[in-house]
Amino acid sequence: MAVYTEVTDEALIAYLKLYDIGELHSLKGIAGGVENSNYMLTTDQGNFILTLYEKRVNAKDLPFFLGLMEHLSEKGMSCPLPIKMKNGESLGLLANRPTAIISFLDGFEIKRPLPKHCFEVGKALAEMHLAGEGFALTRRNGLTLEDWRPLFEKSADRADEVQPGLRKFIETELDFLEANWPKSLPQGVIHADLFTDNVFFLRDELSGIIDFYFACNDLLAYDLVTCINAWCFEPDWAFNTTKALALVKGYESVRPLSEDEFRAIPVLSRGSALRFMLTRLYDWLNVPPGALVVPKNPAEYITKLKFHRGIERTELYGIEHH
Amino acid sequence: MAVYTEVTDEALIAYLKLYDIGELHSLKGIAGGVENSNYMLTTDQGNFILTLYEKRVNAKDLPFFLGLMEHLSEKGMSCPLPIKMKNGESLGLLANRPTAIISFLDGFEIKRPLPKHCFEVGKALAEMHLAGEGFALTRRNGLTLEDWRPLFEKSADRADEVQPGLRKFIETELDFLEANWPKSLPQGVIHADLFTDNVFFLRDELSGIIDFYFACNDLLAYDLVTCINAWCFEPDWAFNTTKALALVKGYESVRPLSEDEFRAIPVLSRGSALRFMLTRLYDWLNVPPGALVVPKNPAEYITKLKFHRGIERTELYGIEHH
Repeated sequence: MAVYTEVTDEALIAYLKLYDIGELHSLKGIAGGVENSNYMLTTDQGNFILTLYEKRVNAKDLPFFLGLMEHLSEKGMSCPLPIKMKNGESLGLLANRPTAIISFLDGFEIKRPLPKHCFEVGKALAEMHLAGEGFALTRRNGLTLEDWRPLFEKSADRADEVQPGLRKFIETELDFLEANWPKSLPQGVIHADLFTDNVFFLRDELSGIIDFYFACNDLLAYDLVTCINAWCFEPDWAFNTTKALALVKGYESVRPLSEDEFRAIPVLSRGSALRFMLTRLYDWLNVPPGALVVPKNPAEYITKLKFHRGIERTELYGIEHH
Repeated sequence: MAVYTEVTDEALIAYLKLYDIGELHSLKGIAGGVENSNYMLTTDQGNFILTLYEKRVNAKDLPFFLGLMEHLSEKGMSCPLPIKMKNGESLGLLANRPTAIISFLDGFEIKRPLPKHCFEVGKALAEMHLAGEGFALTRRNGLTLEDWRPLFEKSADRADEVQPGLRKFIETELDFLEANWPKSLPQGVIHADLFTDNVFFLRDELSGIIDFYFACNDLLAYDLVTCINAWCFEPDWAFNTTKALALVKGYESVRPLSEDEFRAIPVLSRGSALRFMLTRLYDWLNVPPGALVVPKNPAEYITKLKFHRGIERTELYGIEHH
């Protein structure tokens, strides 16, 4: 989240007249993030999030994202709910950008999660997977197996600038993943980006999940390993078995993994680590002039990928199956 | 305002125990600005601003800034009020930075002010000048006449990179200002940075003034011309007489200018334009690597300064004296 588009007071006041959420009291740009412009909006009815969707989000996907938040809320999940305009629409236009106002969710990011937080996030992820059933729209994952090689090719020539031998390392990994990617695991709606900054806690209880702008249809267990990669490594990038065990236990307390899913965890983990490494590698090598956001170093996910390459079967993580 | 220092949830929760403002509900970094790290803090008691003071602010000045906000609030001005800790202090330490929590002020920036807004800001500035009387602390203006030449010397060698002939232009201007700066005008506490982003409006009424981190003791009329420079030029940097007339009228509705102050407006305006041009010039030529904020172009204030150089006496602005 960041601010790429400035909103004038005149334009915003006119825009708010389309809604029934009261009168503008305050608007403050929210720092951080890389995709959209986000503002904290306060009216006499309370706090909201105003999001202007920038170029990196395909406008065609917005009905999926906003519809998913509505669907999950209806199913009882705690996630931001798009506020409907008087005409029933939830997607508008402000400062020439597709725009939505979404409910403000109490809670804050736990930057250094403990095993209890990992348990909670695993549980919430499984709840989301079940709640996603029956959602009418679908969206292809634009960053899945077949997308990785074309994405890599954009950075291949310069990969060794980041780490000597990285190009060869990624090519070998792509060959392995293309040959070994599981074909028949359960699919559904996945969050696809459930990092610590997208999960809120209040009094050590998970209060909500945010940022559904990578959500798509893909393997459910792939979503789980993305969480493991994001939540179960220490700041020095060392794997924490206790946290991974807690996260999987939390997940299975709601949705037990099939035997095939459980066995696929090492290969899925490698794939997910590669996916985040490849986007970070590209962003690292292609910082636009005047960029307001410092790109994330791809080295973190190179290290995580190397760790997973050493794991031959799931039990060696120290993870137990239900 | 921006975010330079990250705050962990553990540190913040511990810090909030020093206050009586309830339990942490949400924390979001505020984008924009250049001096400090600002967060929108929400507790079960409402919204607050959490400010971590960064290197550019001298910690020795903080009692002046926070004390001034308290003094002005007591005098009935609408400005942010530092929240006191249980021990009575308003300045704490968080993430190794001097830190304050201040009240959240409803209202928002008018990016394109109309004459009526200029009248209101002139009036509020004069009210602040009167309310500042009796404030016990003093702070020297670190960016006044005698500071400009040393500041310029840091950029002199490279000034012509920005605009051919700029070095000579500034040198001539400094000579003029040093010879003609008024010596005996009324002094007091000035805001010194009352740009549009530091004034909030609600329903076209001025709801408050924020950001006192340049406040100091200096000529009161110098504060007025800084406002004129910030509020009374159009987006194409053309002077708008109607707005300047409204701003001065608003000011004089509360605190009439002396004849000497009125006559000094052109020279003070040149000085104030030079002051902002010099800091912008320095920042423009010295962008730190990894900077999160795009520096402001000094060209705007070069143009404004050139305009003021063409004004021989105050009446030629179209401004009337009370």
